[in-house]
Amino acid sequence: MNKILIISTGGTIASIKSTEGLKPEDNDLIINALKSIDKNTSFSIKHLFTLDSSNIQPEEWKILASNVYENLDYYDGIIITHGTDTMAYTSSMLCFMIQNPKIPIVFTGSQLPINNELTDAYSNLRYSLAMAKSKTPGIYLAFNRKIILGCRAVKVRTSSFHAFESINLTNVASIDSRGLRIIPELLPKNNFNSTLNINIETNVFLLKLTPTTDPKIIDLLIDYGIKGLVIEAYGTGGISFIRRNFIEYLAKAIKKNIPICVCSQCLYEESNFNIYEVGKKVIEIGVIEALDMTTEACVTKLMWVLGQTNDMKKIKSYFKTSLAGEIKADK
Amino acid sequence: MNKILIISTGGTIASIKSTEGLKPEDNDLIINALKSIDKNTSFSIKHLFTLDSSNIQPEEWKILASNVYENLDYYDGIIITHGTDTMAYTSSMLCFMIQNPKIPIVFTGSQLPINNELTDAYSNLRYSLAMAKSKTPGIYLAFNRKIILGCRAVKVRTSSFHAFESINLTNVASIDSRGLRIIPELLPKNNFNSTLNINIETNVFLLKLTPTTDPKIIDLLIDYGIKGLVIEAYGTGGISFIRRNFIEYLAKAIKKNIPICVCSQCLYEESNFNIYEVGKKVIEIGVIEALDMTTEACVTKLMWVLGQTNDMKKIKSYFKTSLAGEIKADK
Repeated sequence: MNKILIISTGGTIASIKSTEGLKPEDNDLIINALKSIDKNTSFSIKHLFTLDSSNIQPEEWKILASNVYENLDYYDGIIITHGTDTMAYTSSMLCFMIQNPKIPIVFTGSQLPINNELTDAYSNLRYSLAMAKSKTPGIYLAFNRKIILGCRAVKVRTSSFHAFESINLTNVASIDSRGLRIIPELLPKNNFNSTLNINIETNVFLLKLTPTTDPKIIDLLIDYGIKGLVIEAYGTGGISFIRRNFIEYLAKAIKKNIPICVCSQCLYEESNFNIYEVGKKVIEIGVIEALDMTTEACVTKLMWVLGQTNDMKKIKSYFKTSLAGEIKADK
Repeated sequence: MNKILIISTGGTIASIKSTEGLKPEDNDLIINALKSIDKNTSFSIKHLFTLDSSNIQPEEWKILASNVYENLDYYDGIIITHGTDTMAYTSSMLCFMIQNPKIPIVFTGSQLPINNELTDAYSNLRYSLAMAKSKTPGIYLAFNRKIILGCRAVKVRTSSFHAFESINLTNVASIDSRGLRIIPELLPKNNFNSTLNINIETNVFLLKLTPTTDPKIIDLLIDYGIKGLVIEAYGTGGISFIRRNFIEYLAKAIKKNIPICVCSQCLYEESNFNIYEVGKKVIEIGVIEALDMTTEACVTKLMWVLGQTNDMKKIKSYFKTSLAGEIKADK
C-alpha cells in the first residue's frame, strides 16, 4: 500500500469565506478528498502553515524544506498544498534546497476553494496524487492536467484554472484519458542521494527595468546592503547604456563582489547576450546570464548560491550548471 | 494616392552587423522595401533616431510623439519602425501622449534585420502598411499577422517571430488570406480631435515583488524622490503583510501623496482585490487597482497622469477611465 504525506501550507485550496475575504484555515477537506479519490493509499497530513501564499517567505521555505526532507524515508510521495500566488517561487527554491530527491514531491493547489461547487481542487489533487505515486522522484507542480518541473513553473494567469505554465521546457508529464504520461527524457539528472541545504542569502533584489528606471537605484540598493541582484532586462537581455547608463553602475556593483544575474522580462524563450551591441557590453563587465531560467528560478537560485559561497567564480560556475533542471543542461 | 510617413527610430529592423554586434543604422532598406511592396502609395521617411530600443527612454518618447503629432494632418497613416525590446512601452506611452489620433499610427519592427535572408521585416512592414492605409485611426502595433492596440501589447518571446501578444484584449485586427480583418467593436472611443500632451513625470518606479523583497525599499525610494510607484504583485493582487509588511509601508507612501498602482506579475488576466483578505487590506489603504492593464500601460499611464495632476482624487479618477483602451471601458 502506497504511503503519501500531505503537507498543507494554506492557500485558496484550504480557504474558507470570512468577513475579510477568503482566508486559509486548517481543515480536513484536503485529506478527506484524497481518501475519497483513492481508498488503497494510506494518507497522513501535516498542517504546517495556514498562510495565503503572498505571505510565504524565505523563513517558511526553510521550515517546509526541512519538513519534506525529514519525511523522505517514510513515504512513497509527498503532496504539498500551497497557495497559487507564490507557489512557483516555493517550488523553485525547494528544487535547490532539496537536491536529488528520492521520492516524488508534488506541489498543488487550486484557483477556487475546495468547498466551492466549481472547485478545481479535486482534479488538481488527483493529478498530484498520480504523480506522487508514480515512483518518479523529483520536485513537481501539478495543476490543470499538467505536471511541471518545480523550477520551470510560472503562474501566468490570475483567475483561469490553467494558471501555470512550464517555461522553456515541455511539461514533464500530462494527464488525459490515457492516464498519467511522463516524459522521462525531460527529467533532470538525479542520483537519489537526497541532500538538504537551507542556507540562503535573503538579501537579494529583483529589478524589472522600465525605460524610466534610474540606474542610481543600484547604488542605493548596495548602500542598503543587498548581496545579489537579478535584473529583468528587455528581450534577449537589453539594458540601457545611453543617458540612463546601467553598464557603469552594474560594473561598479560587480567590482564590489555583488553578483548580478540578468534574465528577460519576456515570459518565454531564453536570453542571449551575444547578438546585440548592448548585450555584448553587459557580458564584458561580468554579469551572469540567466539563459532559459524563469525569473522565479533565477531569484531563488541566486539566494541559494549566495548561501553556499561569496566567491564570484564559484557563483558563476553554479549558474552555468543545471542543479535541478532549471537551465538547459548542455549550457 | 495614399501618403504614408515612415518614422524610423532604429531597432533590429534597421540593424547592420558590426564588430560589436548588431547595431542600428540609418539606411534606405525600410523605405525601399515599402516602395517595392506598394507602388501606388507615396512614402516619405524621417530618420528620427538610430537607437537600439533598450536606449529609447522618456526623452525619446516626447520627441517621437511631437513628430507624429506634427504630421497628422499631412499623411493618411504613419508607420513607426522601432526595436522590439521596448516597443510596447513606447506604443503604450504614445497612446497617452496622443489621444484621439485622427489617422492610423502603426508601430512595427522585426526580430531579424531587414537584410537577413530569413527576415520577418518585409512581412511586418506589409501588415503595418495595410493598417496604416486602413483609414482606421488609432495607435497600433503590427507584428506577425497581428494588429494589437498600442496600449495592450507586450513582448512575450525573446526570439520567435510571434514576439508580441495582445494582453486581455483580442487582437484588434489580423491578417490572413482574406486580407486585413479589423474588428471595429474592439477599438477604443475616438472623437478624432487629436491632442498632444507630452508632460510626464519620469520619476516613477516599478517594483516586482518576490517573497524576499524588503518593504523598507519603499521608504528608500521615497527618500530618493520617486513620485509614483507601480507594484507587480502576485496573482490577483497578493502582497505580503506578515513579517515583510508591505501594507504599512504602502500606507505611509500614500499619506505622503505618492500614488501606488498595483498590477499583477501574471502576464494574463486581470487583478482583483475583492477576493482575498490580502487584497482587501490593500484596497483599504488606498492603492490604485491596475485591473486588466499591462505593466507597460500601467507604468506609462502613471507617468502621464502625474504629468497632469498631483491630486490623488484626480489621479484615481484617471485610473478608472479608459483613455485609449488600456483598461476595460466599463470599469
